[in-house]
Amino acid sequence: MSDQVTIATGDLRRLAAAALTAAGAQAAQAAATAEVLVESDLLGITTHGVQRLATYCQRLRQGGIKAAAQITVERKAPSLALVDGDSALGQAVALTALESGLEMAAETGIAYVGCRNSNHLGALAPYGLKACEKGFLLVGGSNAASTMAPWGGREARLGNNPLAVAAPCPEAPHFLLDMAMSVAARGKVRRAEREGRPIPEGWALDAEGRPTTDPAAALAGFLLPFGGHKGSGLSQAVDLLAGVVTGARFLTDLSSGIGHLDRPSGSGHFFLLIDPKRLLGAGAYAAAVSRFRALVQETPPADPAAPVRIPGQRQQAQRAKALRDGIELPQDLLARLEALAAGAPD
Amino acid sequence: MSDQVTIATGDLRRLAAAALTAAGAQAAQAAATAEVLVESDLLGITTHGVQRLATYCQRLRQGGIKAAAQITVERKAPSLALVDGDSALGQAVALTALESGLEMAAETGIAYVGCRNSNHLGALAPYGLKACEKGFLLVGGSNAASTMAPWGGREARLGNNPLAVAAPCPEAPHFLLDMAMSVAARGKVRRAEREGRPIPEGWALDAEGRPTTDPAAALAGFLLPFGGHKGSGLSQAVDLLAGVVTGARFLTDLSSGIGHLDRPSGSGHFFLLIDPKRLLGAGAYAAAVSRFRALVQETPPADPAAPVRIPGQRQQAQRAKALRDGIELPQDLLARLEALAAGAPD
Repeated sequence: MSDQVTIATGDLRRLAAAALTAAGAQAAQAAATAEVLVESDLLGITTHGVQRLATYCQRLRQGGIKAAAQITVERKAPSLALVDGDSALGQAVALTALESGLEMAAETGIAYVGCRNSNHLGALAPYGLKACEKGFLLVGGSNAASTMAPWGGREARLGNNPLAVAAPCPEAPHFLLDMAMSVAARGKVRRAEREGRPIPEGWALDAEGRPTTDPAAALAGFLLPFGGHKGSGLSQAVDLLAGVVTGARFLTDLSSGIGHLDRPSGSGHFFLLIDPKRLLGAGAYAAAVSRFRALVQETPPADPAAPVRIPGQRQQAQRAKALRDGIELPQDLLARLEALAAGAPD
Repeated sequence: MSDQVTIATGDLRRLAAAALTAAGAQAAQAAATAEVLVESDLLGITTHGVQRLATYCQRLRQGGIKAAAQITVERKAPSLALVDGDSALGQAVALTALESGLEMAAETGIAYVGCRNSNHLGALAPYGLKACEKGFLLVGGSNAASTMAPWGGREARLGNNPLAVAAPCPEAPHFLLDMAMSVAARGKVRRAEREGRPIPEGWALDAEGRPTTDPAAALAGFLLPFGGHKGSGLSQAVDLLAGVVTGARFLTDLSSGIGHLDRPSGSGHFFLLIDPKRLLGAGAYAAAVSRFRALVQETPPADPAAPVRIPGQRQQAQRAKALRDGIELPQDLLARLEALAAGAPD
């Protein structure tokens, strides 16, 4: 384990943007990507934070992410738009889509924005939080390279497609659900393999579609969706909204952002935005959502030392602390980012 | 077990409507409800079909469902509407909302319709199928009386809120996902209790929040959400979209439609409708969704005798058969419906 160091949010954002521009990214797209990555680190979602930068820089240099990309927004109707990412950094594509969706929803009360020709967009929680801070409900999702079999199958054809639902509260914490579709993330299986531990039953199947607790067999096989046929169906539902109707790639047509550094992923994403004030009025909505949050939080806990929380509450507490005290990073990750920002080859 | 009898779809629909009007329902609301209930039976979702009629008739007579209800639609924006159900039959409220949403989405490409002051709306699949047959994508949900604890809690505060996602294909079967949020339905726990069998681990907690395999302890306690914190979060997300932003009741404020026959449930529902042709064009969407369906269906199956299906495929095959051959019902259920239609007290 490397020592931990602390860095201020603004400094980490500048460093992340500098790493991306050193690898060829345009300044605005680098800044958007840095914003979303650092927001993930603030929320404690470090797996989707600045530790992704080395791969992004490799992909920028090898062409999987297009440095000179032109992101375009095509409005299809007053409340519908499609964004063509031209294989840009996924965060830049998604943030363009979110901003366009928020503008439309401010006008009409609702918006759907889909993205195609995009790349890995990071975690969904930062987009959900941004929508909440502007007072909008968000339903969002992204497709991803295939790692799971459809229920009853024995070949990976579904992505671990994340889904987010966010609802603004009068003050933080907002309701911020961001979940992927597998029982456990692939990274956890890789860690078990490195550490020579079996994985719990129910996480994965081997290449023949049989349950396994052997992490190597699981990695050669595929992850199981949470809730069996339910997670399998929900993964497909996200792909339909993020991939099929946007004109993006979907299912096995998607290219893995890690396996093929020179190939655009062709990912699709979507954001649905609704202005709750247009439905209920600001006062009635604020009262209802506050009561909702309190009813959940005041549930008698199974463990008296662990109060019941709404989704995203712990992350938002972590964020408040990190904004105040700085973001903790492993020393060697910070050194790597500094080298990338100085133009070192990946 | 009662013998099975077969009845034609139109005959069952007329019988169901007659039972409801005999209990005081207005003709149009009875017909809408009969349509949705029989559609559930056609799809093989018998738990949400005409077997619910006896309870609905009791609720109509005792006032939990308002016989003289006036359902009103208030358009809030070109693509936003709220329906006030005035405590009518939930299917009549939901079908009004769906039709209004389909009209709006045909105009603008997208619509959100929320319902408040509603009652049990049955299964979501029939609404999804109707949207698909008109060429629209549907995301829909409803809240329900509390039967689950939020993750980490030991008191039932969440409903087993169903969520549906439906996407039209050029020809059936359409993609038709309709899922509730518990690992197993409460009805299955009741059956285990009647039959003196333990329930599997992971279905439920006892009243103290401890895992149990005793069905009686489970019924005194609460159901577990599928996927742990994920199903718990998703149940809350559905309630936010169906209950909070519609002005409906939510969480523990909802009244159970079974426990209190004289009390309106105050349920909330929502439908989101999107016209995929407005995003992609009819031809490109048809090609993409057909390829999507084939990629899922052609996954090599774990069991060679059980091909991989898309969500709702089995139900739609069952529906085609029932439309051709008639709907099978237990003899005693048919006799009960005939008695209700003849004005027998429930």
